[in-house]
Amino acid sequence: MSAPANFIDFIDNNADKFIQRLADAVAIPSISGDASRRGDVVKMALFLDNQLKSYGVETKLVDLGEHTLEGQQLKLPPAILGKIGTDPKKKTVLIYGHFDVQPAELSDGWDTDPFTLTIDKATGRLIGRGSSDDKGPILGWVNILEAHKSLGLELPVNLKFCFEGMEESGSEGLDDLIESEVKKGKGGWFDGVDCVCISDNYWLNTRTPAITYGLRGLTYFKLNISGPGRDLHSGVFGRTVHEPMTDLVKLMSRLVDPDGKILIPGVDEMVDAPSEAERAIYDNLDYNIADIEESAGSATALSSDKATVLMGRMRYPSLSIHGIEGAFHGVGAKTVIPAHVGGKFSIRLVPPQTPENINPLVVSYLEAEFAKLNSKNKLDIECLHGGKPWVENFNHWNYEAAKKATEAVYKKTPDLTREGGSIPVTLTFAESLGVNVLLLPMGRGDDGAHSTNEKLDRSNFIEGTKLLGTYLYEVAAITSKA
Amino acid sequence: MSAPANFIDFIDNNADKFIQRLADAVAIPSISGDASRRGDVVKMALFLDNQLKSYGVETKLVDLGEHTLEGQQLKLPPAILGKIGTDPKKKTVLIYGHFDVQPAELSDGWDTDPFTLTIDKATGRLIGRGSSDDKGPILGWVNILEAHKSLGLELPVNLKFCFEGMEESGSEGLDDLIESEVKKGKGGWFDGVDCVCISDNYWLNTRTPAITYGLRGLTYFKLNISGPGRDLHSGVFGRTVHEPMTDLVKLMSRLVDPDGKILIPGVDEMVDAPSEAERAIYDNLDYNIADIEESAGSATALSSDKATVLMGRMRYPSLSIHGIEGAFHGVGAKTVIPAHVGGKFSIRLVPPQTPENINPLVVSYLEAEFAKLNSKNKLDIECLHGGKPWVENFNHWNYEAAKKATEAVYKKTPDLTREGGSIPVTLTFAESLGVNVLLLPMGRGDDGAHSTNEKLDRSNFIEGTKLLGTYLYEVAAITSKA
Repeated sequence: MSAPANFIDFIDNNADKFIQRLADAVAIPSISGDASRRGDVVKMALFLDNQLKSYGVETKLVDLGEHTLEGQQLKLPPAILGKIGTDPKKKTVLIYGHFDVQPAELSDGWDTDPFTLTIDKATGRLIGRGSSDDKGPILGWVNILEAHKSLGLELPVNLKFCFEGMEESGSEGLDDLIESEVKKGKGGWFDGVDCVCISDNYWLNTRTPAITYGLRGLTYFKLNISGPGRDLHSGVFGRTVHEPMTDLVKLMSRLVDPDGKILIPGVDEMVDAPSEAERAIYDNLDYNIADIEESAGSATALSSDKATVLMGRMRYPSLSIHGIEGAFHGVGAKTVIPAHVGGKFSIRLVPPQTPENINPLVVSYLEAEFAKLNSKNKLDIECLHGGKPWVENFNHWNYEAAKKATEAVYKKTPDLTREGGSIPVTLTFAESLGVNVLLLPMGRGDDGAHSTNEKLDRSNFIEGTKLLGTYLYEVAAITSKA
Repeated sequence: MSAPANFIDFIDNNADKFIQRLADAVAIPSISGDASRRGDVVKMALFLDNQLKSYGVETKLVDLGEHTLEGQQLKLPPAILGKIGTDPKKKTVLIYGHFDVQPAELSDGWDTDPFTLTIDKATGRLIGRGSSDDKGPILGWVNILEAHKSLGLELPVNLKFCFEGMEESGSEGLDDLIESEVKKGKGGWFDGVDCVCISDNYWLNTRTPAITYGLRGLTYFKLNISGPGRDLHSGVFGRTVHEPMTDLVKLMSRLVDPDGKILIPGVDEMVDAPSEAERAIYDNLDYNIADIEESAGSATALSSDKATVLMGRMRYPSLSIHGIEGAFHGVGAKTVIPAHVGGKFSIRLVPPQTPENINPLVVSYLEAEFAKLNSKNKLDIECLHGGKPWVENFNHWNYEAAKKATEAVYKKTPDLTREGGSIPVTLTFAESLGVNVLLLPMGRGDDGAHSTNEKLDRSNFIEGTKLLGTYLYEVAAITSKA
C-alpha cells in the first residue's frame, strides 16, 4: 500500500502554500539559547500548536518548569504533545521534532536576513535559519495532516507528536517529561506507541536519501585554569607569573593530533577495529571524499581513503577543540594576560563508550598532564554535558517501511547511515519506550544547519513531505501483512 | 641648589587646590579609544592648554590629522606643544605626558564613579580614571608653573612640553609630529632640548621612588589558521577534516614553557646572562616576591628567587599568549569546529632584540613546526605591530639630578629600574633628539593604571610635584657645575 495518488498530487499542488507556511515559521526567531528571544520560542510553540489543532490533532502544551540562562531565571518554552487517531487496529507512530533554532545574525556572514525565508529561484533553495533544522521537517508533518484533512483521507496509522523548543540548548526538561509520561503507563501520552520516527537530520550527501540507525554520543568539557586575581598587563607581568593561557594551550595540545587520533589513553582503544564486512558498508555508501570536502568547503579531509573518513565520522570517536572562554577574543592586539581561562572541547562517543566510562579517563589524564607542567596555577575540570551514543537494529519493519517509502518517492535505495552528531532524545525514546526508533531525514548534507546561509532545497521540502507521508502508509502495509 | 623653601611651602599650602584641579581633569572622560568620547579628549586638551597658558607657557595645539576608529573617520585630538623660558645660559628640559585615559565604567567593577575623583580620607587615595595615568603627573607640572608664577620665582631651566591625547591608543600621529619638528632644526619646536623627562610611569612598589632607564620592546603576532569554508558542526565533521583549532593549539603550545622559557630558537639566546654586578642590582631593589604576588593577586610567581623574577620582568624577553580570534568564546557548550582561527601572542623585547631581528626567527620556527603537523590547513603569520626596546645610559647628569631630587624630597635612594612595558615615544625622543631621556614616575606600583579603582596617593601627588620641581633645580645645579 503506497500512498494514494491524490495525497501525492495535493502535496505538489500546494507547494507554494507550504513554502509560505515555512516562511511564516522562519520569521519567528525562536532561538532557545538567547534569553532575549525566549518570547519568540513561545510564539513559535503557539504557531505550531495552532497548525496542529487546525488539522485535527489533539494537543497539550506542557510546562517544563524553569532554568537559568545568562544569569536569568527563565520559564522553559513548552513542549507540544499531540495525538490524532486511536484505532486499535492501526500502528501508532510517534514523531519527534523541534521548533527552536540556533542563533543567527546577518553579521555572522549570512548573505540574506536569516529570519526572512529567501527563495533562490535559480537553485530552488529556501534559505533561512531553521529551514532545514528543524522547521522544514516539522512542517512536513503539518503538510501531511493538512492534505489528509482537506482530502477527507483517513490516516493509515495513529500519530503521536512530541515537539520541543529546547533542542538546540540541551533539550532541557524533555527527558523528565518523556520519562514521567512513560511511567504513567496506560494513562500516559506515549502509551501504545509502536515505533518512533525522529525528524531531525540530513542525508549524507546531496543526492541519495538516507535512513539513520546510529548516533554518536557526546561528552563536553571545560578546562578552567586560573592564576592571577585579575587580568594582568603583559609588559608588567610577562615572565614573572605562571600564565593560565600558557598552561591551557599546553594541556589542550595534548588532547588530539592533527590527524584526528585522540591522545587520551584508552579512548580510541575502547573501540574495536571494523570487520571486513563492516568496512565494506562504508566503501559502498554513496559518499566520497569530494562530498565531504564540498560540504566542508575545503580540501582538508583527513585521509584520501573514503572508508577511513566516513568511519571517522560515524563509527569512531572524535575530539574537537571549540574555543576558550575568558581569553582575549576581539580584533586587534590587546596585551593582556588573562587571569582565568576556560578551554572547551568535546568528544563524540561511539559504543561501547559512554560519558560514565570516558570521563574518568579524561580527568585523570589531564590532571596528570597538568601536574607535569609544574605550574602554580589551578586546574578545575568541568563536564558541561554528555549523552550516550545510540545504535539501532535496522532489521525491523520500521526501517523496512522507511526504505520502501524512499524507493517509492525517490526511486533510489537509501543509504543506511550512522550520524556523527548527537540527538540525545533518540536514546531516551529508545530506552524508555523500548520500541524501534529511526531517523528519517528530510534535508541534504549541505544544508548548513547551525551555520550561515542555512537552507532547505525546495525539492527536499516537497518530496520530503511525500516521503514522510508514504512512510506512514508503508508502516501500515508492512505491519498488516506481518 | 635644591628647590627654594617657598616653592616647597607653596606646594604644601595649595594641596587642596591642586587636588581640585585634578578632580576637574578626571571629570573629563577623555578616552582616546572610544569614538563617542573624542569630544572629551579635545575638551581635555583645551582644559590643559588653558592651564598652561594661564601660567605663562606659550602653547600650540597641533592638528595630527585623521584616523579610523570603530569604522568612523575621526579627527585625531590635537597634541599640545608648549615652551616657557629662552635663556641660553639655562638647560632646556622637554617634558612628555598624556591627557587621554583608558576606558572605565562603573560596571567594570569600580567601587565609585570612575570619572568623579573620590578622596578616601582614611588612606589618602585619590581614586578616579586617569588620576595616576597620566593626569596627576601632567598636572604636577602645572602645579610647579603655578607656584613659580604666584611666587614670582624664575624657573631654573627652560621648559618645553609635549602632551598628547592618543597615548592609550598607540600615540597615533605623534611620531610624525616629533620627527617633522626635529627636521626643522633651528626653527623646530624641540630645538635646543638638552634632556627629556617622561612623566608616565610608576614606582616598582609602594614604598620606594624609582627612576626608570629601560623599557621592553614588543612584537605582536597573529597566527591565522584556516581550513573549512565555514564553521562546521563537530558531530558531522569531527574526525573527517583537519581542524584549525587542533593545529593552532599545537603551534601555540610550542611557543613558551610554563616557567616562561621561550621555545623559539634564538630568542632567549640573544640576551646575555647578567654579570654578578648586574644581578646584584636586582637583588638590591626594594621589591620582592610578595610584592609581585600581591600585585598579581595570586601566589604564582615563576620562582622563589627575587632576582630571577625581577629580571624576568625587566631584562629578559617574555612571551604571552593573549587569546584566539574566531573560536568559540562565549559561555556554554557550542559544538563548533571554527573554520578560521587567529591565535594572538606577543613577545616583549630587550636589547639587542628588535622586531627586525626577532620576527624572522618567529616566522621560520612556526612555519617549520606547522609543516611537522602534516595538516592540510593553511597557516598565515601576521605581525600586528612592534616597537624596539630602550635602555638609557644612567651615568648622566639627567639621572644624577633625578636621583638628588628624590633624595631631597623622599630622603631615600631611588630604585633604578627597567620597566617590563613599552612607551614607544621614549625611543622616538631618544633617537630623534639624540639626548638623554629618563622616566621619573609620580605614582606607585599599585595604582592600578588601566585597571579598576585607579588611584594616585595624595602624598604621591603632592610630594611628586615637589620631586618634579626639585629635579629642575638639580638639573640647573649639576649642569652649572659641570
